[in-house]
Amino acid sequence: MRNPRFTDLLSKLPATVPFVGPETQERTRGAVFDARLGANECVFGPSPKAIAAMQAVSGEIWKYADPTSFELRTALADHLDVDICNIVVGEGIDGLLGYTARIVVQEGDNIITSDGAYPTFNYHVIGYGGILHKVPYKNDHEDLDGLLQAVINTDAKLVYFANPDNPMGTVHSSEAVQNFIDRLPGNCLLALDEAYIEFAPVGISPRIDVEQSNVLRFRTFSKGYGMAGARVGYAIGSQDVILQFEKIRNHFGMNLAAQVGALAALHDQNWIEHIRHQVENARDQISQIAQDNGLSIIPSATNFVAIDCGQDSAFAKLVLLYLVEHGIFVRMPFVTPQDRCIRVSVGLEKDLRLLADLLPRALSEARSAS
Amino acid sequence: MRNPRFTDLLSKLPATVPFVGPETQERTRGAVFDARLGANECVFGPSPKAIAAMQAVSGEIWKYADPTSFELRTALADHLDVDICNIVVGEGIDGLLGYTARIVVQEGDNIITSDGAYPTFNYHVIGYGGILHKVPYKNDHEDLDGLLQAVINTDAKLVYFANPDNPMGTVHSSEAVQNFIDRLPGNCLLALDEAYIEFAPVGISPRIDVEQSNVLRFRTFSKGYGMAGARVGYAIGSQDVILQFEKIRNHFGMNLAAQVGALAALHDQNWIEHIRHQVENARDQISQIAQDNGLSIIPSATNFVAIDCGQDSAFAKLVLLYLVEHGIFVRMPFVTPQDRCIRVSVGLEKDLRLLADLLPRALSEARSAS
Repeated sequence: MRNPRFTDLLSKLPATVPFVGPETQERTRGAVFDARLGANECVFGPSPKAIAAMQAVSGEIWKYADPTSFELRTALADHLDVDICNIVVGEGIDGLLGYTARIVVQEGDNIITSDGAYPTFNYHVIGYGGILHKVPYKNDHEDLDGLLQAVINTDAKLVYFANPDNPMGTVHSSEAVQNFIDRLPGNCLLALDEAYIEFAPVGISPRIDVEQSNVLRFRTFSKGYGMAGARVGYAIGSQDVILQFEKIRNHFGMNLAAQVGALAALHDQNWIEHIRHQVENARDQISQIAQDNGLSIIPSATNFVAIDCGQDSAFAKLVLLYLVEHGIFVRMPFVTPQDRCIRVSVGLEKDLRLLADLLPRALSEARSAS
Repeated sequence: MRNPRFTDLLSKLPATVPFVGPETQERTRGAVFDARLGANECVFGPSPKAIAAMQAVSGEIWKYADPTSFELRTALADHLDVDICNIVVGEGIDGLLGYTARIVVQEGDNIITSDGAYPTFNYHVIGYGGILHKVPYKNDHEDLDGLLQAVINTDAKLVYFANPDNPMGTVHSSEAVQNFIDRLPGNCLLALDEAYIEFAPVGISPRIDVEQSNVLRFRTFSKGYGMAGARVGYAIGSQDVILQFEKIRNHFGMNLAAQVGALAALHDQNWIEHIRHQVENARDQISQIAQDNGLSIIPSATNFVAIDCGQDSAFAKLVLLYLVEHGIFVRMPFVTPQDRCIRVSVGLEKDLRLLADLLPRALSEARSAS
């Protein structure tokens, strides 16, 4: 008999995945989606300079990338006015959240997040045996007071929230986040996910203070920089916390061309300005489409908009299913009451025209079925 | 006081890295290397079709890659005559070895490798609290009988070896490896690293039998396919073992362009034939350079050659230092007696001419210093 032994923890883990990709759905339905509005990708793409840089370096892909990501970290440190030792680069925020769970979480540790927040954080915490405590959203916002109270009540080692939030797109002010940080117990690490920060109003991120060793911020080239497929995320924190990643991370995990592209993207801040305008415009269009259908939206500080379908989860699911079956890839929040909404990423004109076409029919079908 | 709590294990881990990259050395010496012969990269590059495919898809980098790597896994399954459920794709073999350690190793578990074999395996095993037992090499080969005995003696959960071997470049026959597999206790998982398999004589890899659930093979696009900077590795195993990776891996860890490039590379097997000839030719040249300097080489089945400097580790280190200081990036084995050698990756004509120029001087300096 050949039966390799695995860890005790592994047998308790489900073989679930945080997200099913649109490609799997496309294979099931036998056709590609006409509009890809479900994964909060930036359909407007990366800076043309980033594309050119990646293309130019393709012939050098026989080389391993610098395992210290020195050039990219140096540029990020300049951009953020911190030191290179305050930055770690990883395989997307997803990869860095995995590393964070690994350095903090051991079996039975209490960890705090919001009920319906980013499932990949949950996946990694559970993957290391942590016990997740989920705080309900409050008025479609992550409830910072509730999260803080849960940290205190459970002596939690790690707390996660995203600002701006995903999947609702709401945002807390810089003062509210700073107030949370000021009151957070010093022995609890905050994982502050700022994946969508480039789309948010300027100034909503509290000043980065790398002396606050229990605050770790996560940012990415996947959203504002339009490079989700490149897998380049980074975390910003105190030197001591960043050093912990060096003990466990895959030092040769980063793609060479991706890092060259990210560097070029970072240097083209004009493109980010351009993207902000495109995204604002598309958000307004989605809002108008919702309004034309008698629906309201949750005001968004991101590149997606949660449309309140006006009824319960079952109804929103019917609306979503119609859209998916008719060629629009969209997703929806996971838990009640947020799951009265569908979540629509910003799209090109043609994508949003399709949404405008299909949404009335989706609503009408859902109403007659429910 | 802000002092986040980490895992108990983390405090025991050193902040060391498996390899210092050449870029770090270049920054220290203030100049780039003239020849990059230290990381067993394939300087002849990937298939031009792979480069073209990566360039063509650069503009779509705003999309996340399919988290199931369906197309690449399907093509690999066809190529290897296994099912797609027998393959997991990851961020290089390095990333997959990390996942393997995570699913198998818990604190105090006995794990077997060879003394002086791949340090990244050791890094991950120690990173999960495993106890490494290192079996000496035998005649510059990994000692399969010794490894098997160590597995039995320690009731080990995991044993690692590479065939062909790194850093010596030696190879065991298909029969020898199959014999090891046949005698391996069924509750011990073999991590069989075949990173260099494309350079080895045809037939040295035992037939893949995915019913052998305690055998996991690792292959990569980094070596023969010339795409080290892309970070695309894969593991082949039984459905049950592969399923374990789904519980813990970073599902969105893979670069989009890298996978498209890997797919194109896999479909261009003529290029691999071309590369095999180039590598054989370069190995012969390195051998000739060694011979011209009165040195012998360890016969290699890889894209690198271990040159026996004929004396001890201290002497080989002096030779290596001279080469590094004069513009050739090379590495050497980590432990005695293998560290009487320096390890030279195959290079372009110009790289090997530089080696031919510098090696006599390196030896002469080393002889006068020792």
